[in-house]
Order: sequence, then structure tokens, then C-alpha cells
Amino acid sequence: MRMVDLIEKKRDGGELTNDEIQFMIEGYTKGDIPDYQISAFAMAVFFKGMTQSESAYLTMAMVESGDQIDLSSINGIKVDKHSTGGVGDTTTLVLAPLVAAIGVPVAKMSGRGLGHTGGTIDKLEAIPGFNVEIDNEQFNNLVNTNKVAVVGQSGNLTPADKKLYSLRDVTATVESIPLIASSIMSKKIASGADAIVLDVKTGSGAFMKDLEGAKALAKAMVEIGNAVGRQTTAVISDMSQPLGYAIGNSLEIREAIETLRGKGPKDLVELCLVLGSQMVYLAKKAETLEEARRKLEEVIANGKALETFKAFLSAQGGDASIVDNPNKLPSAQYTFEVNAKEAGFVSEIISDKVGTAAMILGAGRATKESKIDLAVGLVLNKKIGEKVEKGESLVTIHSNREDVNDVIERIYDSYKISQNPVDSIPLIYDEINN
Amino acid sequence: MRMVDLIEKKRDGGELTNDEIQFMIEGYTKGDIPDYQISAFAMAVFFKGMTQSESAYLTMAMVESGDQIDLSSINGIKVDKHSTGGVGDTTTLVLAPLVAAIGVPVAKMSGRGLGHTGGTIDKLEAIPGFNVEIDNEQFNNLVNTNKVAVVGQSGNLTPADKKLYSLRDVTATVESIPLIASSIMSKKIASGADAIVLDVKTGSGAFMKDLEGAKALAKAMVEIGNAVGRQTTAVISDMSQPLGYAIGNSLEIREAIETLRGKGPKDLVELCLVLGSQMVYLAKKAETLEEARRKLEEVIANGKALETFKAFLSAQGGDASIVDNPNKLPSAQYTFEVNAKEAGFVSEIISDKVGTAAMILGAGRATKESKIDLAVGLVLNKKIGEKVEKGESLVTIHSNREDVNDVIERIYDSYKISQNPVDSIPLIYDEINN
Repeated sequence: MRMVDLIEKKRDGGELTNDEIQFMIEGYTKGDIPDYQISAFAMAVFFKGMTQSESAYLTMAMVESGDQIDLSSINGIKVDKHSTGGVGDTTTLVLAPLVAAIGVPVAKMSGRGLGHTGGTIDKLEAIPGFNVEIDNEQFNNLVNTNKVAVVGQSGNLTPADKKLYSLRDVTATVESIPLIASSIMSKKIASGADAIVLDVKTGSGAFMKDLEGAKALAKAMVEIGNAVGRQTTAVISDMSQPLGYAIGNSLEIREAIETLRGKGPKDLVELCLVLGSQMVYLAKKAETLEEARRKLEEVIANGKALETFKAFLSAQGGDASIVDNPNKLPSAQYTFEVNAKEAGFVSEIISDKVGTAAMILGAGRATKESKIDLAVGLVLNKKIGEKVEKGESLVTIHSNREDVNDVIERIYDSYKISQNPVDSIPLIYDEINN
Repeated sequence: MRMVDLIEKKRDGGELTNDEIQFMIEGYTKGDIPDYQISAFAMAVFFKGMTQSESAYLTMAMVESGDQIDLSSINGIKVDKHSTGGVGDTTTLVLAPLVAAIGVPVAKMSGRGLGHTGGTIDKLEAIPGFNVEIDNEQFNNLVNTNKVAVVGQSGNLTPADKKLYSLRDVTATVESIPLIASSIMSKKIASGADAIVLDVKTGSGAFMKDLEGAKALAKAMVEIGNAVGRQTTAVISDMSQPLGYAIGNSLEIREAIETLRGKGPKDLVELCLVLGSQMVYLAKKAETLEEARRKLEEVIANGKALETFKAFLSAQGGDASIVDNPNKLPSAQYTFEVNAKEAGFVSEIISDKVGTAAMILGAGRATKESKIDLAVGLVLNKKIGEKVEKGESLVTIHSNREDVNDVIERIYDSYKISQNPVDSIPLIYDEINN
């Protein structure tokens, strides 16, 4: 078999076999097939796409290129949730204890990563004493006991995907739906999930700007999951403005606590209920999505969700008293209000710009070497559709530096105020199950 | 400027500027831009093409990546001819002295290369004493004196093209018309041609199998040439069967001599007159193509073409007496006839297979290390449309080995005999001047 023939086959619209895809991914992982052939192949895929079968073969070839996490000693159906990213997305912090509270085992492996704010691991480290460096046995035991644990990523998962992703990044071949789909799915599958709930974002702050692209990506991932025996569903949710109000590590922990207490921002609560219902349903802890939702609402109302959160924190060495006393969380030295220059209705919030404003405050990493300031960030006081008076605060800045003009400027740039009333934006566009 | 942005621009159908293409080719030649970005770019070009301007910029960037031959001390307009390759193509050997005989300066730089038979240089080395290792000054002087000289390729011409071509070969990006066109044109321009006549072959034995592809390639090259100030014309000629009768180095020298003497195969004579007329016209040695053709026919008839050939051979140390006594050329030890198994009409000759039959006899190189046997080859006795009796010879094999069953088998495989009369095939399909 020669790689050049496989490139030509794809270039001319042919469908690769499992053997051909395995040959390619094994050879690439080992270094027998050079980058320059894979990048030409990726560009051919950009133009010609991949069939459902090809995407599934590619996913599994990448899963098999490295270690696979074994969660078999954890009781029950392990359901993982994945979000395609956005700004101020606090859902994982809420969902993990929420679904665990009704018996869904949540074995969450999480990374740090680059972005507007830290990863879930970074956020949890805002809690004094919280420890993510636990070994595999401890991890499995914790999930069996408390139904929820979070651990830092370890092992050499999907090295083929890492290599391919780095290459795509410098060869303008990132924006290919089958390649994005198999990249995401390979990581979830290698992490040991039995079933997967995907939160595919759409809108200005999302990777997929338009609804059609988001739907296509969601469909591709659901097809892959179902083809390789991992039941998968996807929710298409809005990211044309940041989710909830908080953007920043410690600030998002506070917001998660409020949400588990039943007092969260409406959009964050709703998205957690929608995603959580899918997780509960896939874990077979409810017969229908409606029943799952009722159960979730119940554990919020009766305090069981919050109790599960506390138990989870304690079990990993974290100070659970922060739940009742959030002032124990790292907090910033200064706060500043960004006040509206004119009255009107918020018509647009450019999520990327708001996210970058949080990042330059220190809430996220620009490079792998950047150090995160867990205390800083932004709290949005107005969201799309809301009325605002002149001089009213749009955003509160939490900062450890005195001069935040650069941040303020970005916030003004990202908020558009209209003189006419503005419709609010739907939160959930679609749910895709097959 | 970042290469990844240029790949993306091309991927999305954008048009690159001269600066962008120069950045890419300079960076690639120096090794600053890696193969994996260029291969992704080439695949994007495969799908999105290049505009006339882009192709011209690419051509000149490749020309400027290495040495350029300076032919300015040669008097007159230097017209080069290039053929896109085929089987048994003896036109260069005929054309060089033919147009030189009416004053067109022919400064031919030629390579050895791989293929069914040797390059022009190899063929000329069948002439005892002939020397192609002459320096630049000698070369220019010889052209000024005799109007024709042939030299082996020297200097580091179009290194960017060499690097790009090797990469395209292993990334399934060879078959892109703008990339093929700029590759060919960059070599011609770097070799110092003032004007260029292209012989673009079409048919089963050609790189471009179909007429449409051949026309598109011809048009792309003519556009590049004219855009960069080198007047260029193209002839689309048939290569659905080998040109002339002879395939082999010494055998083709004999055929060239016969043709210069006015006794050549009809198709070879005609193609030489068509291409030669274009060369004479571009060199401004005739006012019209018709006048050019009359002049060419005249120098064949009056023996001046043959005399020019002799003078050319002598000037480069070759034994010109082979012209009147071709038996002095290397000749093979054995000849074998491949006789028709049935009567009928020749309906097809698969040129590639016939060419390969000649190559395995030793007439051409399969790898750079192969040694050529100048004496061996094939002489076709029947071409498409000709009537053949059972037992009549289709092909004569000239061999230095006794067992030629492998060669005979390939010849039978390549000849198709029909019971019904077959139309002969047109030789010239089109001429493209702008």
C-alpha cells in the first residue's frame, strides 16, 4: 500500500477502507508516513469530505494509536459531556455534581489548555486544597463512592490526533467537519466514555459560527459515536453571547454554586438541565428526557446537588466550606464598572472580544507558559435583549491591576447598544440523536 | 506574511499576489517553508486552480530561484521548442538543423532523463565522437557560427521547480494544469529562450490523455509565456500512437537523417514542418507561417538542411560521415520480426506499452542508474489505419539479446487488429497562439 495512492483516491472522491485508514494513521504515528503526505491528504478531505464509515475508521485508528483509559471498574454507564468551547462556559462545574446527585457516574478527565479562562481543572484549583493529581485506582474508587471525580489528563491518549491536529493547524485544514468530528470523538472514546453528550456551540463566540455548520458537525459526531458503539447525542446551543454572567475561574465557581443552589443565570440553568437530561437518559437513570429533567430539578430544589458538590470537593481534599462561604475563594483586589455610554437595548455582545478581555486580565492562558490568575475576570450585568440606562453598568471587571483601560476598551468594542427593542436569542437550537 | 494564510487564501478560492508567491517560493527554496505546507498548498491548487497572473508569478519565482542561462551573445531571436513527451519523438533531432538551415539560431540545452528512450543528448551520443560537454562560450560561438549547437544541462536551473515537482510526485498533486504549465515554462525561460514553441501531445501515449486537457495545458503555457514577455505558441499533436517508425536512440538518428533527406515518415515530416514553421515565424525569419513552411520544404529539397546537420555534427566532434553511411551508427546484433497473427487493419497501438517494450530492450532508462544501449529499439512497420496480412511484420525488434519473448509479448499486447477498415488519426488538432 502506498500513501500517495490513498491521497489520490481521496482527491478523486473515493472512499477509503478501514485497512487503508489504519495503514495511514499507524504509519503517520510511527513516522513512516511524512507530514507532507498527510497535509495533502487533509486538504483533499477538506474538499472531498469523508463518509460516515471513513470518519468512524479514522476515529478508531486515532483511539488505537495510544493509551485508552479503562473505566470498567466503575459501576454504571459512564456518560461524558463535551462542549465545543465558547466563552464563560460553566456547564461542566454544574453538570458533574448535578447528574452525580441522581446516580450517574461522572468520571471526568480534564485538561488545562489555552483560552479565555482556564480549563475545568484550573477552575477547581481555585478551591483551597483541591487536588486533581490522583491515581487511576483512587479515581475509580472516588467515582464509585461519590459518583463524581475529576482528574488531570494523564497517559498518552490519541497521539495520532495530537500530531494530525498540530499539522492541520499550520496547513489551513482545521475547518473540515469530518476531521474535527473524528478528532473530538477519538479523545472522548480514548478517555473511556460509554456514552457521550455533545454540546455543539453556534454563534459569534463559537468555533462554528453558523447554525448549519454546527448541525453538520453535531451530526458527524453523533454518527461516529453510534457507529463505534458509544451512544451519542448532541445539543446545539447558542454562543452568540457568553453563557451565564461570569467569565473567570473563581467567578465561575461562584456561579456554579449559585446554579446548583437554584439561583443561577437563566441560560446556564436551562443548558445544564438540557444537557443533564441527556446524560441521565443515556445513563439509563430515567426512562424519558422529561423524567430526567424532573429528577434534575428535584435534586437542585432539595439541596442534594449542592451536597454532592460538597462531598466531591471534600473527597478530593478541597475546602467544601467555600460552598456556603464563597468569599473564601480567591478574589481580586479591585473592581471596576464599565458603564453604558448611552441608553438603549443590548443588541450584540461579541463573545470573542469579551473572552479576550478576560484573558488579558489574566483569567486565561495565551501560551502554554502563561500563569493564570484565578481571582480575576468579568461579570456581565447586561445580556442581549436587556434594556440599559445611560451610566448603568454593563460589566464588572475583577482585576488585580489598577489600570484596566485596555480591558474596558475591549468591552465597549464588544457591546452594541440599539435604540430599538431587541429580541432575545434562543438558547437551544436543536437536539440530535441519530 | 504566514504561509498558512496563503494556503487558506488559495483554499478559499482567493488570488495570490506576486509578493505572496515570491514569499512562498523563496521560503520553500531556502527551506524556511516546510514541505507539508507546500503540499497542502499544491492540493488546494489542484482543486481551486490558479489565475493567469498567479501562474506567471509562480513561473518567474521558480525561474529566479536558481541560475538563468544568458544567451544574449547569440545573434537573433532564440526560439526553443518543448514537447510534453511521448513515444518515438524524433522531432528535436530533425527540427534543430532544419530551422538552423534558414538562419534560426538553435541553442539547445538538453538532458538525459528517464523514459522509453534516451534524451536528445543520449541519441546524439550514438554518433561517434559527438561531444556535448562544451562550455558556455564555445556553445554561444557554435550557435553564432553554425546556427545550431546542443549542450548538456548545466547550472542549477529552477531548483524550486525540482523541489516542488518531487513533492507533487508523492502527494498526488502532479495533475494540476497551472502547476504543470509553470513547471515546464520555468525551465524553458531559465534556459534563456526568447520565444517558445510548445508541442503538447494528446492521446493514449501522452501525459494528457484527452484533447480537452491538452488544450487547457497548451493555453495555460501560452498565457504564461506571453505574460512574461516570451512569445509562445503551442501545437496540439497526436500521441495515440508512436510518432514516426523508430523507437530507439541510433534508430531515431537514422530516421532523423531520412527525414532531413525528405524521405521521412509522413507524420514525423508533417509535425516537423508545423513546429518548424512556428519557430521560423517566431524568429522573424518569415512573414507568415505559409512562407516559413515553404522555406523549410525548400531546405529539405535542396539538401541544405542535411548539410547543416553535418556541419553541426562536425563542429561538436561528431563523425558526419554517418549521415551518408548510417551503418557506421551502433547497430544491434539481432533483429526479430513480430508478425501479425491475423489479417485486418491496425486499430490501436498502445504507445506506452510499445515504449516500455523498447525500454526493457535497453533503449531507455528505468532508473537514473540504468545504462542505455544506443543500438537497440523497435521499428514499427504498421501504423493505425494500415492494412495487414496474416504473418506480415508489425514491428522489427533490434536487440542485443537473443531471447526477446518479453518484448514480443508487449508488442502483441499493444497492437489491436480490427476486421473492419479503420480511419487514420489526425496528426495536428490545434494551434494556439494566445
